[in-house]
Amino acid sequence: MTNPLPTGATIGILGGGQLGRMLSVAAARLGLRTHIYEPGSNPPAADVANAVTTAAYDDTAALTAFAQSVDLVTYEFENIPTEALDVIEAITPIHPNRRALGTSQDRLVEKTFLQDIGLTVAPFADVTDAASLDAAVASVGTPAILKTRRFGYDGKGQSRLKTPEDAATALADMAGAPAVLEGFVNFSIEISIIAARNPQGEIACYDPGENIHRDGILHTTTVPAKLPPRLRTDAVLLAAKILNTLDYVGVMGVELFVTPQGLIVNEIAPRVHNSGHWTQNGCAVDQFEQHIRAIAGWPLGDGTRYADVVMENLIGDDVDAIPALAKEPNCAIHLYGKVETKAGRKMGHVNRVTR
Amino acid sequence: MTNPLPTGATIGILGGGQLGRMLSVAAARLGLRTHIYEPGSNPPAADVANAVTTAAYDDTAALTAFAQSVDLVTYEFENIPTEALDVIEAITPIHPNRRALGTSQDRLVEKTFLQDIGLTVAPFADVTDAASLDAAVASVGTPAILKTRRFGYDGKGQSRLKTPEDAATALADMAGAPAVLEGFVNFSIEISIIAARNPQGEIACYDPGENIHRDGILHTTTVPAKLPPRLRTDAVLLAAKILNTLDYVGVMGVELFVTPQGLIVNEIAPRVHNSGHWTQNGCAVDQFEQHIRAIAGWPLGDGTRYADVVMENLIGDDVDAIPALAKEPNCAIHLYGKVETKAGRKMGHVNRVTR
Repeated sequence: MTNPLPTGATIGILGGGQLGRMLSVAAARLGLRTHIYEPGSNPPAADVANAVTTAAYDDTAALTAFAQSVDLVTYEFENIPTEALDVIEAITPIHPNRRALGTSQDRLVEKTFLQDIGLTVAPFADVTDAASLDAAVASVGTPAILKTRRFGYDGKGQSRLKTPEDAATALADMAGAPAVLEGFVNFSIEISIIAARNPQGEIACYDPGENIHRDGILHTTTVPAKLPPRLRTDAVLLAAKILNTLDYVGVMGVELFVTPQGLIVNEIAPRVHNSGHWTQNGCAVDQFEQHIRAIAGWPLGDGTRYADVVMENLIGDDVDAIPALAKEPNCAIHLYGKVETKAGRKMGHVNRVTR
Repeated sequence: MTNPLPTGATIGILGGGQLGRMLSVAAARLGLRTHIYEPGSNPPAADVANAVTTAAYDDTAALTAFAQSVDLVTYEFENIPTEALDVIEAITPIHPNRRALGTSQDRLVEKTFLQDIGLTVAPFADVTDAASLDAAVASVGTPAILKTRRFGYDGKGQSRLKTPEDAATALADMAGAPAVLEGFVNFSIEISIIAARNPQGEIACYDPGENIHRDGILHTTTVPAKLPPRLRTDAVLLAAKILNTLDYVGVMGVELFVTPQGLIVNEIAPRVHNSGHWTQNGCAVDQFEQHIRAIAGWPLGDGTRYADVVMENLIGDDVDAIPALAKEPNCAIHLYGKVETKAGRKMGHVNRVTR
């Protein structure tokens, strides 16, 4: 892909949630169309997309027709079955590439990759059974956290070990799934950096945001983060290293722990990221448009931030505060059009422009 | 309409051009859906709307089905046939209301209304034939401009009279349509103010923007306008007077001439306005969301501007500059997805965030 996608071209998006929704809107701003592929009914992205295919990820005929109808494919989540990707990739390009996806789909592969390219990660060890968990506890120590290698998000598929005595319970929580034991990191704050790379090899990063979680789900991201300039540079450089090594095309979210010894990489997400939503009201080119620009072969936005922003997620009943939030000056509302409110469900977010 | 529209409700929009497109995106941000009614094929708004009806404005069955499928109706242009509005209004509310629409659809009615509420307009006179044109020239003087009372936009349906001798040619240009002769105004700059009012009677105005036209089409809008604070206050007050008098619900664009004697109202548009596009990158709540908030009965954004912006329209071949514009820092691109470029066609705009 050397020529930028022209007006009227169509981007296929796997997944019809809020990230796909905001990607669709960004594509429209660039004169591009979107086609959503989503197994669930009434996906949030359908409200703002040109076309929607409602089909399962093992429906080869639907995947084939979808891939044939678009100019390239991207995705809003990383847990896409390999077989679905094989069907699509035989027909049309997928960005970010399979290596990036494969790396981030599996915590063990991801941590090994990050370590291999010289970045610092929390101590970790492979866990497949009681014996390997005992060995992992011996090497990593406690407190620690046992996580499934695949399909975890928003704190799901995780179990804490305060002491080695918690091992049996934690292993049972994994329900037989391959897992990784991670040592706890003594960090002052968690930040994330949203980075992008296009096929020409240009890289652009946004200012790191400072993340606060509640109940394992992102609660707020604040820019600027309280971060020494040296660590800001470190964050940019390590993100660039990850993207270049993976020959990455698109936006990536990189979560980092800030510690007295420097930055520790927590995890990477090969997609637009909740902690980058602040860019919608702080930058001329937000992370969604940046992702579309990257995969469409356009020049990247430079990531300049022209406002201070606090992004706050609206989880479950939080959305009941909308009438009050709508009255707040400088509070930009972003709802996802989900009619049914559920506990723990991301219903929307607000960006408070604070300066 | 006293209760705000809830998530999942649907707004019908008459007209599927770029204004309908940007209204749809704004509605989505508030969790609302849109249904576009547009006679032409492949309307720009269809890319980001939930539903599209392709039918003529005299198709009563289609209008009825459309009106029944939505919670309320708004529009992106003012030249909607009265009969179509009658069909819709029998079923569901239309905002802004019929009086606002009727006033702005007819230059003579508009100017008379503005004058009647105490605002200053250019000298004008009704023209139906050669005799009334002669009388109009005698009262208004030359140079002057003869405009059709209805269906004019972007400089169309207009003819200039440098001297009284141009009268016959100008009248012929009207092709028998009822017209208004307007005296020229000696103004320093043209500004416009984008104002909004909701059913609760709240009013909010954005900072006036300074407009420059080329070939009768808006070229740039710059905020802040070079305007003394006193005139800024005058602009806000006169906009509020117009909205309150019309019991208006929605966003209105008011074009004003700045003269040594104060502000002269050029024209009003009962909809989001090209000169308000800068708000997309200068405010937490842009004019499109403000319009949706108003008609949906939500609280209004306060209109605070947090950046200096220059909006530039991309007309016809201007859009060929997109590859260069995409490389410009702090240049936000907004394309309308129109595949065919035509001379004079609005293809998109950019908002340059200048501070």
